[in-house]
Amino acid sequence: MQNQIIEITQFANHLADLARAATLPFFRGEHGVENKGEIEYDPVTLADRACENAMRDAIQKHRPDDAIIGEEYGDKAGKSGWLWILDPIDGTRAFVAGTSTWGVLIAAYYNGEPIIGIMDQPFTGERWIGNPNQAIWQRNGEERKLITKNDALIENSVIATTDPFLFHGNERIAFDEIRKKAPVTRYGLDCTAYGLLALGGIGLVVENGLKIVDLAALIPIVENSGGVFTDWKGNRNPSTGRVIAAANQKIHQEALKILSKVD
Amino acid sequence: MQNQIIEITQFANHLADLARAATLPFFRGEHGVENKGEIEYDPVTLADRACENAMRDAIQKHRPDDAIIGEEYGDKAGKSGWLWILDPIDGTRAFVAGTSTWGVLIAAYYNGEPIIGIMDQPFTGERWIGNPNQAIWQRNGEERKLITKNDALIENSVIATTDPFLFHGNERIAFDEIRKKAPVTRYGLDCTAYGLLALGGIGLVVENGLKIVDLAALIPIVENSGGVFTDWKGNRNPSTGRVIAAANQKIHQEALKILSKVD
Repeated sequence: MQNQIIEITQFANHLADLARAATLPFFRGEHGVENKGEIEYDPVTLADRACENAMRDAIQKHRPDDAIIGEEYGDKAGKSGWLWILDPIDGTRAFVAGTSTWGVLIAAYYNGEPIIGIMDQPFTGERWIGNPNQAIWQRNGEERKLITKNDALIENSVIATTDPFLFHGNERIAFDEIRKKAPVTRYGLDCTAYGLLALGGIGLVVENGLKIVDLAALIPIVENSGGVFTDWKGNRNPSTGRVIAAANQKIHQEALKILSKVD
Repeated sequence: MQNQIIEITQFANHLADLARAATLPFFRGEHGVENKGEIEYDPVTLADRACENAMRDAIQKHRPDDAIIGEEYGDKAGKSGWLWILDPIDGTRAFVAGTSTWGVLIAAYYNGEPIIGIMDQPFTGERWIGNPNQAIWQRNGEERKLITKNDALIENSVIATTDPFLFHGNERIAFDEIRKKAPVTRYGLDCTAYGLLALGGIGLVVENGLKIVDLAALIPIVENSGGVFTDWKGNRNPSTGRVIAAANQKIHQEALKILSKVD
C-alpha cells in the first residue's frame, strides 16, 4: 500500500499539472471568450469541461481499471479498488469574478476511504497535497509542511464559510452563534478556506450543501495537517453536505456543540 | 504636468517595490513571528509599520517637499502641491487569514485632486496602475490594459462588498435590494474588488466606513479604466466613507437610485 500511495500521489500531481494547463487560459477572459449569458459558452464552463476531460483521458489511458466520479461528466465504474473524485473547478463564482480562491480538486479513494487529496490553484501556482505520508504546500519550487493551529479556539480564530445567506432557519441561528464568537469571518473562499486551515491561518470552516466532489480531496489535506473533518453530527466522510473542518479537536468540539443541535 | 505624471508614477512604482519587499516576509507567518494576542507583535502590525516606514523614508529622501497622509504614522505637511496617501496594508483580516486579497495602496494627489493610484499585491505579484495616461495591470512581465465592463447591468454582474454585517438599518435594506438583483455577490475582497472591477470581472462594489487611505489610490485606477467612483449621493471624492465603484454609468445609476435614499 505504501508504494501505491507514492505512485498514485505522483499520478495525481500529473493530473493537477494537466488541470492547470487546461484551466488557466480561460481565467479572466484571457481566452477571449465572452460571457454571452448562454451557459454553454461561459469561459468557466469551457474551462470546467476542458479540465475534467484532460484528467479523465489521462486516467483512462494510464489507470483504466480505476473508477471515476466527475462533476461534469458523471460516474465511471472500475475494478482496481481505486476511485478518483474530480472537481475540475471548485469555486466557479470566484473564477467568474477573477479572484484566485477557486481550485482544482483531485481525490483518490481506496475501497471507499479517502487516501490522497490534491488542491491546486493554477493562477497563484499553489498546490496542497495530503496523504498518510505527507501534508505539504508547494509553490514555484518552495515547499512547506502543512500544520494546522493546534492550540487555538474559535474565540481567537479566523473562521470561514461560503456565504452567510446560504444558511436558513436553525442553520442560520447556529452559524450566527459561531460567527459572533470569532473575531474575524471570511466569506467565499471556496476550497482555499480549507487550504488556509491546513496552513494555519484559519481555525474553522463551516459549510452546508457540499457535494462529494467538493469535499473529497479536502479530507486527506485537512486530516493529515492535524485538522478534523466531519459533518455537523461529528461523522467522518460527510454525506449530508454539511461540513465542519476544524484546526484542532478543541475547535471541533466547540463547533460541534453548537452545530449538532441543527436537524 | 504630463512629464510630472510620468516621473511621479515611476517613483510610485518604486514605492510599491519597497512595500512588496517590506510586507512579504511577514505574510503567512514566514517571518516566524507568532500572534501572541498583543497587537504590537502581530505579524500584520509589524508588516504594516515596516511597509509605511519604507515608503515614507523614500519620499522624505527623494521628494522632501511632498505632503504625506499615512495609515500608521499620520500626516506630514508639504509645499510641492503633491500629497502621498499611503495604506501599507489594506485588508489586514485577509493578511491574517492568509488570503491574497490584501494590497498596498499608494495614491498621489495634486492640489487636492487624485492623479495617480497604485495597488500592489505582493504575494500574487499583481500590480494595478492608474493615472490620466494609462490604466494597466502587470504581473511577472505580463501587462494588460484595464477596461471595465462597459455594457453590463447589476442584473448580470458580480457585485462585491466587505461584509454584509457591516451595513445597519437603512444601509442594510438598500444593500439587500442590490444584492438580490445581482446573480453573484463576493465578500471580503478588500482593495482587490476594485482591481477586479478595473479588470472587467466585477460590475459593482458598494462599501461604507472607508477612510481616505482606503480609497484614494483606487480612484485613479477605477476612473481611468472606464469606471465611476463616487459616494452614495453621487459625489466624486467620497468623504462620507460610503463608496460606489461601478463598471459603467448604467450600473452607477442603478446603484445610486437605491443607495442615495439612505441618509
